[in-house]
Amino acid sequence: MPESLVNPSDKAGLPPGAIVHVGEVPQHETRIKVVDIGTGNVAENQLNSLHELAQYKDTDSITWVIVEGLRGANLVAELEPVFGIHPLVIEDILNTHQRAKFEEHEHYVFIVMKGLLSDKRQFHVRTEQVSLLLLDKFVFTFKERQDDLLQPILQRIKAGKGRFHSLGPDYLVYTVLDIIIDNLFLLVDTLDEQTNALEDKLLTSKTTQKTLRAIQGLKRELIHVRRNITPMREVLAGMMRSESTLISDKTGIYLRDALDHTIRIVESIESYRDILSSLLEIYVSTISNKMNEIMKVLTVFASIFIPLTFLTGIYGMNFQHMPELSWNWAYPALWVLFITIPVVLMIYFKKKRWL
Amino acid sequence: MPESLVNPSDKAGLPPGAIVHVGEVPQHETRIKVVDIGTGNVAENQLNSLHELAQYKDTDSITWVIVEGLRGANLVAELEPVFGIHPLVIEDILNTHQRAKFEEHEHYVFIVMKGLLSDKRQFHVRTEQVSLLLLDKFVFTFKERQDDLLQPILQRIKAGKGRFHSLGPDYLVYTVLDIIIDNLFLLVDTLDEQTNALEDKLLTSKTTQKTLRAIQGLKRELIHVRRNITPMREVLAGMMRSESTLISDKTGIYLRDALDHTIRIVESIESYRDILSSLLEIYVSTISNKMNEIMKVLTVFASIFIPLTFLTGIYGMNFQHMPELSWNWAYPALWVLFITIPVVLMIYFKKKRWL
Amino acid sequence: MPESLVNPSDKAGLPPGAIVHVGEVPQHETRIKVVDIGTGNVAENQLNSLHELAQYKDTDSITWVIVEGLRGANLVAELEPVFGIHPLVIEDILNTHQRAKFEEHEHYVFIVMKGLLSDKRQFHVRTEQVSLLLLDKFVFTFKERQDDLLQPILQRIKAGKGRFHSLGPDYLVYTVLDIIIDNLFLLVDTLDEQTNALEDKLLTSKTTQKTLRAIQGLKRELIHVRRNITPMREVLAGMMRSESTLISDKTGIYLRDALDHTIRIVESIESYRDILSSLLEIYVSTISNKMNEIMKVLTVFASIFIPLTFLTGIYGMNFQHMPELSWNWAYPALWVLFITIPVVLMIYFKKKRWL
Amino acid sequence: MPESLVNPSDKAGLPPGAIVHVGEVPQHETRIKVVDIGTGNVAENQLNSLHELAQYKDTDSITWVIVEGLRGANLVAELEPVFGIHPLVIEDILNTHQRAKFEEHEHYVFIVMKGLLSDKRQFHVRTEQVSLLLLDKFVFTFKERQDDLLQPILQRIKAGKGRFHSLGPDYLVYTVLDIIIDNLFLLVDTLDEQTNALEDKLLTSKTTQKTLRAIQGLKRELIHVRRNITPMREVLAGMMRSESTLISDKTGIYLRDALDHTIRIVESIESYRDILSSLLEIYVSTISNKMNEIMKVLTVFASIFIPLTFLTGIYGMNFQHMPELSWNWAYPALWVLFITIPVVLMIYFKKKRWL
Amino acid sequence: MPESLVNPSDKAGLPPGAIVHVGEVPQHETRIKVVDIGTGNVAENQLNSLHELAQYKDTDSITWVIVEGLRGANLVAELEPVFGIHPLVIEDILNTHQRAKFEEHEHYVFIVMKGLLSDKRQFHVRTEQVSLLLLDKFVFTFKERQDDLLQPILQRIKAGKGRFHSLGPDYLVYTVLDIIIDNLFLLVDTLDEQTNALEDKLLTSKTTQKTLRAIQGLKRELIHVRRNITPMREVLAGMMRSESTLISDKTGIYLRDALDHTIRIVESIESYRDILSSLLEIYVSTISNKMNEIMKVLTVFASIFIPLTFLTGIYGMNFQHMPELSWNWAYPALWVLFITIPVVLMIYFKKKRWL
Repeated sequence: MPESLVNPSDKAGLPPGAIVHVGEVPQHETRIKVVDIGTGNVAENQLNSLHELAQYKDTDSITWVIVEGLRGANLVAELEPVFGIHPLVIEDILNTHQRAKFEEHEHYVFIVMKGLLSDKRQFHVRTEQVSLLLLDKFVFTFKERQDDLLQPILQRIKAGKGRFHSLGPDYLVYTVLDIIIDNLFLLVDTLDEQTNALEDKLLTSKTTQKTLRAIQGLKRELIHVRRNITPMREVLAGMMRSESTLISDKTGIYLRDALDHTIRIVESIESYRDILSSLLEIYVSTISNKMNEIMKVLTVFASIFIPLTFLTGIYGMNFQHMPELSWNWAYPALWVLFITIPVVLMIYFKKKRWL
Repeated sequence: MPESLVNPSDKAGLPPGAIVHVGEVPQHETRIKVVDIGTGNVAENQLNSLHELAQYKDTDSITWVIVEGLRGANLVAELEPVFGIHPLVIEDILNTHQRAKFEEHEHYVFIVMKGLLSDKRQFHVRTEQVSLLLLDKFVFTFKERQDDLLQPILQRIKAGKGRFHSLGPDYLVYTVLDIIIDNLFLLVDTLDEQTNALEDKLLTSKTTQKTLRAIQGLKRELIHVRRNITPMREVLAGMMRSESTLISDKTGIYLRDALDHTIRIVESIESYRDILSSLLEIYVSTISNKMNEIMKVLTVFASIFIPLTFLTGIYGMNFQHMPELSWNWAYPALWVLFITIPVVLMIYFKKKRWL
Repeated sequence: MPESLVNPSDKAGLPPGAIVHVGEVPQHETRIKVVDIGTGNVAENQLNSLHELAQYKDTDSITWVIVEGLRGANLVAELEPVFGIHPLVIEDILNTHQRAKFEEHEHYVFIVMKGLLSDKRQFHVRTEQVSLLLLDKFVFTFKERQDDLLQPILQRIKAGKGRFHSLGPDYLVYTVLDIIIDNLFLLVDTLDEQTNALEDKLLTSKTTQKTLRAIQGLKRELIHVRRNITPMREVLAGMMRSESTLISDKTGIYLRDALDHTIRIVESIESYRDILSSLLEIYVSTISNKMNEIMKVLTVFASIFIPLTFLTGIYGMNFQHMPELSWNWAYPALWVLFITIPVVLMIYFKKKRWL
Repeated sequence: MPESLVNPSDKAGLPPGAIVHVGEVPQHETRIKVVDIGTGNVAENQLNSLHELAQYKDTDSITWVIVEGLRGANLVAELEPVFGIHPLVIEDILNTHQRAKFEEHEHYVFIVMKGLLSDKRQFHVRTEQVSLLLLDKFVFTFKERQDDLLQPILQRIKAGKGRFHSLGPDYLVYTVLDIIIDNLFLLVDTLDEQTNALEDKLLTSKTTQKTLRAIQGLKRELIHVRRNITPMREVLAGMMRSESTLISDKTGIYLRDALDHTIRIVESIESYRDILSSLLEIYVSTISNKMNEIMKVLTVFASIFIPLTFLTGIYGMNFQHMPELSWNWAYPALWVLFITIPVVLMIYFKKKRWL
Repeated sequence: MPESLVNPSDKAGLPPGAIVHVGEVPQHETRIKVVDIGTGNVAENQLNSLHELAQYKDTDSITWVIVEGLRGANLVAELEPVFGIHPLVIEDILNTHQRAKFEEHEHYVFIVMKGLLSDKRQFHVRTEQVSLLLLDKFVFTFKERQDDLLQPILQRIKAGKGRFHSLGPDYLVYTVLDIIIDNLFLLVDTLDEQTNALEDKLLTSKTTQKTLRAIQGLKRELIHVRRNITPMREVLAGMMRSESTLISDKTGIYLRDALDHTIRIVESIESYRDILSSLLEIYVSTISNKMNEIMKVLTVFASIFIPLTFLTGIYGMNFQHMPELSWNWAYPALWVLFITIPVVLMIYFKKKRWL
């Protein structure tokens, strides 16, 4: 069962907006990183608490706050008083079973995306929810796990010095979305390899019950992947259409590009669905074909030898008056039959294309 | 047959708007509870008749009327003269075969939702219709059964003292919707467990006709669940879009959240549909595979012994002139054949991957 | 073949709007009934010709004309000069192969509905086209057959005295639609019983080719029913949206209710489609299962006795030098084999779950 | 392969708008007929060239030009200079692989329709493209073949004298569309007969591989028919919505009627698709059922006689010490077995419902 | 695996808009051709670098730049400073895994199309991305490969002298789109031949596992083709709707024509999908039919000879007291049985239509 099909019913009965981290992913300790992007310089810091963010509020720089690991739920709860984030939004950040979504609030924008990863050999997909808050001078990124996903962006920020400052916080948000979408292409690649491997196995007819399970497993992961990716299309389309002043026109063209990529991935996923159905059809008719072959062998054997055995039965009877028994050429004559009957049947089966 | 697929044709021929409770659910006695939420205090009362509600009409408090059990149809009929509820609305409250729906009327809003419950072990879904009326200072909740569904809300109201008064009656309506939706997550969880259990059974190949019935039973319940849940999406979207003054902007964000949850559940249900189809495909090809295996055994047995039996038949014949019969080494030679023929066939079948 | 799938190609080549009754239903003699609903009194009359309607034109009362049986095509043709009905509309009334539809004309509204009836035991659906014309003070109802469909309405009109006068002619139209829709619920009930009966048969495995035909027959009727019901949804939605002054706002709420019912029925029909597909799947895999069982029996019998027969064959041979034949314990020893071989095979098959 | 699935790739590389007749239909010689409809009189003429149309340009009458057979491509090319028809439109007239379409141009309207015919016995559909140009006082009809399709209209024009003049050229266009659509009903009738015949064959179980081919052939024609008919719906909807002054309001009601018919036909086609799928399902499970029956016979025969043959084998052995052989009642006792074993097995199979 | 299902994940981690050619197609050396279309004369030149285009910027002529082969990525990068093309657009030109798309930018229009080619014998589709930039006086065409695709246009330009100058650069863009779409018709033709060939093979019942693979291969290519062609429809619809001044109304009618063609192709592709599904159904039931035939032969042989062999077994037993053995007519009587039993069974099987 793909992990994210399991739903957070633990919450049933709690007041709406109750702030508890819900998710099966082994929870990582929270680590808070702050990247302060000024006009010319970039500073990176490790924080212990979101309270320390107050110092960044009055500066002119763009402050990128990366929160990895969501175990310290109360940490995040500090967002409401300082930045005026709605409790329901904070709930959505902590509950990692969200659909990808895009919400415009009065003074900030809230984005939920799903990062999908799979190891190369087995197509088993791991999901990570990445939530983004875009404020006037702040960008928050909340991740479930501590990993290197955002590393390339950090390096580019450091290398580009103040370039990211001029591009604005919405461009920063875009780069995060872009890296998530680029990773989806990796996923599609793995999917491609898996499907090809399966197809090769099917064509070399080393088909076993295992192949069926592999196809079904892939199919199931695909259902899961599709459910997570499809809403991303709406997210990006929503951002493009958005009239929020937080998203500048200049970034719009990048979002269109990201949207194009997402559509491409969604269409790939749909194609693989069709291809997997084809594989299943091949599998099923391979089984039928095998059955046919087995039946042919059985039929050929039985049809040839059963009549012959009947013949031997006749002359194995013990009647006193069986004149043939004493004829000298009877036995050799029977051997002629023993040879011609199979030959005739073989020709018949050959004509029926059974051999 | 899921109960709600049966339709209330008993009414055919009656005047439209005839007020009779229609529904197969064993009808409970009506119990009326009133929760009066003032600015600072909360009072809970038990009423005998809706007539007694008149006293609450002039107060400033928010009055929540919970009607559990719909047998006392005439009770409900008292709504029309006092609160000006349209007879068709009252009919819809009593006829528990409604689709979830949202209707705006002049001075009130009418909402029908479906509560879905299933016991943990078997995925057999019980449906309860929960109707809501939102007036200026009143909220009515009509339930088919007497149970604890709304208990958590009552507790929160009592604990929060006047907080619910300031949040308004529309927020109260939202909390009821929210608790219904949260219960749907429980349903999805049960569904998840059932599907997993079935899949495990299929993979350990202890597949019987029973497994098929379990898959089909689940599928059928899913059809039923889907039909009930899908319209809820429209209900919440309708409420969000509504321009009624009874639903404040502040509550809008909560409704969006509830809508997100509903969409998530609908998508889960769709996923489980796909997964159940996959299970069925596994089941069907498991049967085919089994057949193949059976056929192989039969073919191997028959193909090996039928030719041998023919051989023994030959030398069981009673011809007077069968020179082989008197040869000393003929019998041992035949034994050589009896051993080599099966060996050769075994190798052949091995190569064909039948063994 | 459901009757209404047959189309009126007899008309091909005739001028558009040629007024001929087209339909396979055995045509009934036309019977014209007039119900004149005044402010306080209700008068019911039988007419011979529509010409006699002239007398009702100048009164203030609402005149309901019920035409049952469409054989007297020329009768209906009298509508054009007197009431200004477009020839194409009259053609649609007479041609009983219409889809349900709603058309607004300058001074009248035209509605086509399909009444669907089925006998309880067999789900064989009979279709009747009911056309309605709503004018300022007139309501026309055209039915294919003479039956009791509208009887309950007539009774209510008589009982209610002038009540129907104040509700207006559009409410009268609604009551006719309502009774047609209520009858659809009866249809759904029969469908439900039929499906349940089929399912029971399938589960008790008394499956025969007949069951398949029953499923397919039901499926086919469902295709027919669905095609007839689906457009009714558009009819009611169209009436609700209509800005014609002939349909008052007050009636709007009743139409919404009727629309809700229609949607509910359409969704039921869709559910039954899914359920029938499920039944077919059960049927198909029941057959496969049966085949498996048959094959098992064959395989068990053949696999056990074929080797044993081979053994008997050996010692039935007539070689002069077969030392075993003279051994005293050879025969009993063979009996040991005759018993152990089946036992071993039985255990093997037991382990393979074939027994 | 339905003819129209083949596409005119011969044109690849030519300049867009190159005027060449493309189509596999054996091309007929062009025949030009002119029907001049004045206020009181109707004149019918045969033309040699479209140049001769100049004389009709200044009259007040409605001129209907019927061009049958498109081989004389240059003839048609005379339309551009005289009537100002765009080269691409002329290309579309000559290329008979168009979809049905409706195009509004500055001073004329262009309509492409597909006439579909099938012979009664075999459901093999022949397609003919009928293009229409509607100008202020002119109507052009281009047909691929010379046949009687438009004959009924001609007769009505002649009979009606000047009636068609007052109805306007757009009504003339409608009558052509109407006759094409009426012919589609004939097609649906043939389809209905074919499907019924197939169903009867399936139910009387005289199912052969031929039946499958018939189903598939019908299915394929249906794909073809559907592809041609579906766009006609858009054509008529487009004409109804059109704000061109060439199409009067008065004709609008006739177009709505034609649209209703088209929708009805499209829905019929969809129904037949569903029904054909059902037939295929019946076919497939009929085969499975037959297989079951065959297997049962085999199993019954084999299961009864194989054990008996084994018994005879035992007492056919030649051991010297087989005491039973000399018992007097041994042989009759064996006969008892020969009779009881089959009886017991028969009862067993009876209970399993195999007999 | 169709090439284009593989996705450019190599780029993951690079900054968005990183300009690298991504694509598996063996990259051709870049060749730049310039066609300068003046009012009366046409000049064709070969360029080494896009820098040399500067000279064409001030002339009044329409300049068509054809870039074939995208290996020289830096060449293309020269577009940004000179013509103000956005880096993301240049990235899209170089990354040949785009969907077909149409983008309006401030002073230019960007179009991506997919050219699809297949060799006649095998339906193996090769994809080439053709990107177009339409500026005020410039048209850029970027192709992956050096081939003759655009040759016919070049010839027409040269032949038409200044005609293309007056038609404008948007018409030039249209001609390129038109030639790509015309090539799609070739593709559909090949598809048609392949499908017909497959169908013929299926009907002559020379069905092998190879046929299945051919069907599946075709199906898979179709998935690929469909994915590439479907977005072209949006491209052309987008261009028609576009309000850019770069696309004149005069060209609009040509675009509508191209759109019609594209829709026609998309619908063909859909039809072939349906037809391939039908072929698969024929294939599957052909296998089942074959199985039935095999089983019949086996059953007939076994059912006839097994009882007979049992009879011979009886009189092969060695009991001392078997009176029949000494009867003179016993042996001939048995022969009567040996003949009548098969005859009776044959008649029975004949009645069951097994022979």
